[in-house]
Amino acid sequence: MSHDKNAVRKILDQAKAAGREALTAPEARGVCEAYGITIPKEGVAHSADEAAKLASSIGFPVVMKIVSPQILHKTEAGGVVVGVKSAEHAKEAYATILANARKYDAKAEILGVQIQQMLMGGQEVIIGAVTDPAFGKLVAFGLGGVLVEVLKDITFRLAPASSEDALSMLDGIQAAEILRGVRGGKPVDRAALSGMIERVSALIADFPEISEMDLNPVFATERGATAADVRIVLNFNPAPPRDRPNQAAIVEKMNRIMKPKALAVIGASAENGKIGNSVMKNLINGGYKGEIYPIHPSATEIMGKKAYKSVKDVPGAIDVAVFAIPAKFVAQALTEVGEKKIAGAILIPSGFAETGNMAGQTELVEIGRKYGVRLMGPNIYGFYYTPSNLCATFCTAYDVKGHAALSSQSGGIGMAIIGFSRSAKMGVSAIVGLGNKSDIDEDDLLTFFEQDDNTTIIAQHCEDLKDGRSFAEVAKRVSKKKPIVVLKAGRTSMGARAASSHTGALAGNDKIYEDVFKQSGVIRARSLRDLLEFARGIPVLPTPKGNNVVIITGAGGSGVLLSDACVDNGLSLMAMPADLDAAFRKFIPPFGAAGNPVDITGGEPPTTYQNTVRLGLQDPRIHALILGYWHTIITPPMVFAKLMVEVVAEMRAKGIEKPVVASLAGDVEVEEAAEYLYQHGIPAYAYSTEIPVAVLGAKYKWARGAGLIPKE
Amino acid sequence: MSHDKNAVRKILDQAKAAGREALTAPEARGVCEAYGITIPKEGVAHSADEAAKLASSIGFPVVMKIVSPQILHKTEAGGVVVGVKSAEHAKEAYATILANARKYDAKAEILGVQIQQMLMGGQEVIIGAVTDPAFGKLVAFGLGGVLVEVLKDITFRLAPASSEDALSMLDGIQAAEILRGVRGGKPVDRAALSGMIERVSALIADFPEISEMDLNPVFATERGATAADVRIVLNFNPAPPRDRPNQAAIVEKMNRIMKPKALAVIGASAENGKIGNSVMKNLINGGYKGEIYPIHPSATEIMGKKAYKSVKDVPGAIDVAVFAIPAKFVAQALTEVGEKKIAGAILIPSGFAETGNMAGQTELVEIGRKYGVRLMGPNIYGFYYTPSNLCATFCTAYDVKGHAALSSQSGGIGMAIIGFSRSAKMGVSAIVGLGNKSDIDEDDLLTFFEQDDNTTIIAQHCEDLKDGRSFAEVAKRVSKKKPIVVLKAGRTSMGARAASSHTGALAGNDKIYEDVFKQSGVIRARSLRDLLEFARGIPVLPTPKGNNVVIITGAGGSGVLLSDACVDNGLSLMAMPADLDAAFRKFIPPFGAAGNPVDITGGEPPTTYQNTVRLGLQDPRIHALILGYWHTIITPPMVFAKLMVEVVAEMRAKGIEKPVVASLAGDVEVEEAAEYLYQHGIPAYAYSTEIPVAVLGAKYKWARGAGLIPKE
Repeated sequence: MSHDKNAVRKILDQAKAAGREALTAPEARGVCEAYGITIPKEGVAHSADEAAKLASSIGFPVVMKIVSPQILHKTEAGGVVVGVKSAEHAKEAYATILANARKYDAKAEILGVQIQQMLMGGQEVIIGAVTDPAFGKLVAFGLGGVLVEVLKDITFRLAPASSEDALSMLDGIQAAEILRGVRGGKPVDRAALSGMIERVSALIADFPEISEMDLNPVFATERGATAADVRIVLNFNPAPPRDRPNQAAIVEKMNRIMKPKALAVIGASAENGKIGNSVMKNLINGGYKGEIYPIHPSATEIMGKKAYKSVKDVPGAIDVAVFAIPAKFVAQALTEVGEKKIAGAILIPSGFAETGNMAGQTELVEIGRKYGVRLMGPNIYGFYYTPSNLCATFCTAYDVKGHAALSSQSGGIGMAIIGFSRSAKMGVSAIVGLGNKSDIDEDDLLTFFEQDDNTTIIAQHCEDLKDGRSFAEVAKRVSKKKPIVVLKAGRTSMGARAASSHTGALAGNDKIYEDVFKQSGVIRARSLRDLLEFARGIPVLPTPKGNNVVIITGAGGSGVLLSDACVDNGLSLMAMPADLDAAFRKFIPPFGAAGNPVDITGGEPPTTYQNTVRLGLQDPRIHALILGYWHTIITPPMVFAKLMVEVVAEMRAKGIEKPVVASLAGDVEVEEAAEYLYQHGIPAYAYSTEIPVAVLGAKYKWARGAGLIPKE
Repeated sequence: MSHDKNAVRKILDQAKAAGREALTAPEARGVCEAYGITIPKEGVAHSADEAAKLASSIGFPVVMKIVSPQILHKTEAGGVVVGVKSAEHAKEAYATILANARKYDAKAEILGVQIQQMLMGGQEVIIGAVTDPAFGKLVAFGLGGVLVEVLKDITFRLAPASSEDALSMLDGIQAAEILRGVRGGKPVDRAALSGMIERVSALIADFPEISEMDLNPVFATERGATAADVRIVLNFNPAPPRDRPNQAAIVEKMNRIMKPKALAVIGASAENGKIGNSVMKNLINGGYKGEIYPIHPSATEIMGKKAYKSVKDVPGAIDVAVFAIPAKFVAQALTEVGEKKIAGAILIPSGFAETGNMAGQTELVEIGRKYGVRLMGPNIYGFYYTPSNLCATFCTAYDVKGHAALSSQSGGIGMAIIGFSRSAKMGVSAIVGLGNKSDIDEDDLLTFFEQDDNTTIIAQHCEDLKDGRSFAEVAKRVSKKKPIVVLKAGRTSMGARAASSHTGALAGNDKIYEDVFKQSGVIRARSLRDLLEFARGIPVLPTPKGNNVVIITGAGGSGVLLSDACVDNGLSLMAMPADLDAAFRKFIPPFGAAGNPVDITGGEPPTTYQNTVRLGLQDPRIHALILGYWHTIITPPMVFAKLMVEVVAEMRAKGIEKPVVASLAGDVEVEEAAEYLYQHGIPAYAYSTEIPVAVLGAKYKWARGAGLIPKE
């Protein structure tokens, strides 16, 4: 696509010089032409006679609209007349529009009346753009009309959007079917429409001063798309982008922070109950093998370690400093940390932005930036990195090693992560508190965990993203290698945003997160339990090789609920081929049901589960299994569990690995069986049909997002 | 509303005599007129000249449409011309329509061309009617246009609908806002629109042979509503309604079944592993105090009880017979049960409809009906009724007494209920298996539990409703007294339905369940865990006296997630009055946040929780509390739990009872604290912000549905 940037620059400069914050219609038209965005034939008339002449040359019917920098909502101002069908009518309309405009705003500067080819037929859609505080420039797409405005059926992508991104937007709305043509309607020209989306996204990415933009309506027909009306809003003082180190610099510093050879505890204490004492205990009792330097104004030794007055007094190099001192002492100590060339400061102390002390936090950020010290926090519990036995926190030690890296913005949620992890025996590689996120945030963690061999999945709780764009860019890359699950809190608080464009007003904050997460391959958790269960279950499951899911169940009732859950979680129940159906039938009673779910019926012995599950694993057309177990005397829970683990192991020995999850219905013994299954690689849940399927669904979302299997 | 039933009867009789399954346009018009459904001025022309004359008398513009009993899809047939603006144009249109109709279906009988006043402006809506296999006659309402057809934004009510029901439909669609007028649009005449819905619902209720009906579009304006097109589909052989005993008869029989004085076990056995043995053991070991009569072809005594060859040999009266014999012997034994005047048969045996043996099941139903024996099952685990220590089942005995009555259609789900109940220490009054539901179904249970003083909540799992209408009628009454929670499985299998009307095609099965449940005051569970958690939690909570919910949290992060959950569950966070805000602030640190959530911050001692929660309970403007606890050394989990229970008890002693739920974030000790809280009347969950709020939300749904608090 060739874009005439100079032409746009000239128009914007002219608006800037005139002190305007919106383009006039002719200017907006010029911008569109420069970027190849199709607009209707039009011109501006400055008298009733000129209006009649221009309308005749364009061809009737035409639409006539007021041109005034002060009048943005033209319809409200009575500044629009549609369906003008003759020269005489055009003259009348000119007079009406001028009269209405003056009545609406007597001071408005009137530059004329725009005469425009009237578009009809096709589907009305909206293409727009907004500037989001976290994500920056976003392009938006939705269907036109009052109904869609009410239903808020709109979708967003980061700008610039790739051709693939742009095309995906046509399927990204609820009413996508309409664009394919329904009830005799013609399908729209998808290439033309996605091309226009792409051009708009390029335009706003190229010109940061374009803060909002509406093409509304765009008439999308079988052949082409034309933007009937264009509104461009400007902001010549955009917020500067957040200062971000490059990826290599992040990796280097984060490696020193997360896997330090030597560590200082500023405010270390021998006194029980002090935070600096808890940190020392957790470090020592947790089994950390690197050097620990307690920093204390007077002590010479703390908990058997030689103490120093300042980090600057420590003879060797230090990688990270854990702060356990009151807020007012932090800045001075941080300066010393900088002078000592320490890579990271773990700022446990509270009393900064969260209590309204913005200045105190800004001071820390400036010191950190000056010396190149990365800051974690302030206002955090610290962090755990289990491969190094490192518990740099004042909470309890955590020692169940594994491969899930979790983080939380809030301390309370961090404690819930620790409790759940311990209770569920979920092995973790790291748990990190991010608190006020003055510096280190979710994307730094993604960058570190991407190259951390001890981590196979990253799960994050956040309330906002300080730099959503960096997050999205990093997540898009990292999610191709390792699953990323995010619980975005504050989902429903779609704060009112000041917006002078239509698209701006439609941009509910959460819908942007939703779309950007999807665009970046991030799996979104809807609840705290989902975050935790996904973090636990996804790494346990092998990656499926295709989309065909089969349910094998001893309880018909579970089969129905499991099927519901499959639909809810975007899983596709395989249409059972006749030969496979026949093969399953050989193992089940005549009144059992093959098809999918395979209902083996409740009274069956262990061999029936064994035979059907083995068949399900062996047949290459099946890619994942969901098991529904029904507690009976003939096949008790632990018999079932052990047998399933055996069959899965038997197949694994033959090189067959497929994700298998299980739902167990029965008396309390099923809880032990579920735990046994889980510990042996089969995520299993008692009294729930929905959770195991949600976990499998999350694995599928990841595999599809990472391009490992088709998106269906 | 006065309805001319005779006029409608005459039209329907005429269509029946002609062997037609749809009314012609003039007939449909006659039906509408008889029921006061406003339609446009119109007439039928039989020649081009007549068309011109008629159109002129109605006034231009007009719409012209083919009238032919064979052509239902008029637009497809090219049988519609809109916007006819002159007599000349009317003549041309007449010719075109006739030509197109003959091309479309040369054999179609053409009765003329309808000339109709052309309606413009206002909002296009659809009012329709369908006949559902479970629920019978339903009236439907939605917005017109392709978009809504694609988004399936439609709502249903049982017919006849009350004025209130009809009015509620205008708010029952996603796009409800449009009817109130958006972006300069005028609001519709709600009384006219709901009046039309009510009239349609009365019509289809009065005439069972009207199987489907479309008013599409209806033009709803500021003043009135006019149905521009009417389609009425007939079925003169509707399925007969399911035979239902009256409510008094149900109560009488169900009381004998659920609280029997004497009970027979047909197929009782002393042999371990036999179902008849398990049933005997559960009855005896469960502690049932009534008479137990084992029935066995040869034994004289089983497990210390005198055995009989047949129930007819038993000297005393018997209330219920539990069947533990193979399917093929059931019919004979059931006849004897009937002759003995036993009230109910608990048909554990499988091998009937679920294996395709429809005839076998029909035979049982006929025997049952002949003798007035109510049938539970077949193909069930039996039932429990804990107030009588009655375990009439082959599963394990269950003895945690309480007030939740649960039932399941599937045995597997029944076992999950038993396991969960035991694990969560959920007291139950009854657990009932319904299986094939040849006779006793959900509404019989509702009728029984309504008057059962041992039951305070009813929770049901079902895959279908054999008689949805009876269920809805009974549920509407019962739900005013006791909460009813239903997990409807098969939610997502919206089987394709044969439908010749537009509304019929839109009637996704699940949407009907959704709307009817709501209309009947039933709380719908979305998952098995929800069903179980709601059954456990709802009775624990006192009924709120209003809609103001306040969150008090030690963790800001939990506060955000709890707020999200409030929105998800339809709870309204109270806007904090200034004086109350100030009162909370007195107890919390200066950097804490009052407002709602009240964020007391994480480092606070137990008294801060105590003071703020006491205030929340005392202030009469607050109606419910959600607590967010954050595990700290200063306020350990059990200290928090005990204190909360104390405060709640202290207030209860003063006559203050409000629902309180809690979310606990922390290390594993919070699990014990959560259990303690739950056992003392505060539903509490570790590592979850969403479940406690969902439980409170379910309580609110009930209270609103039962009319105990305003619907907001």
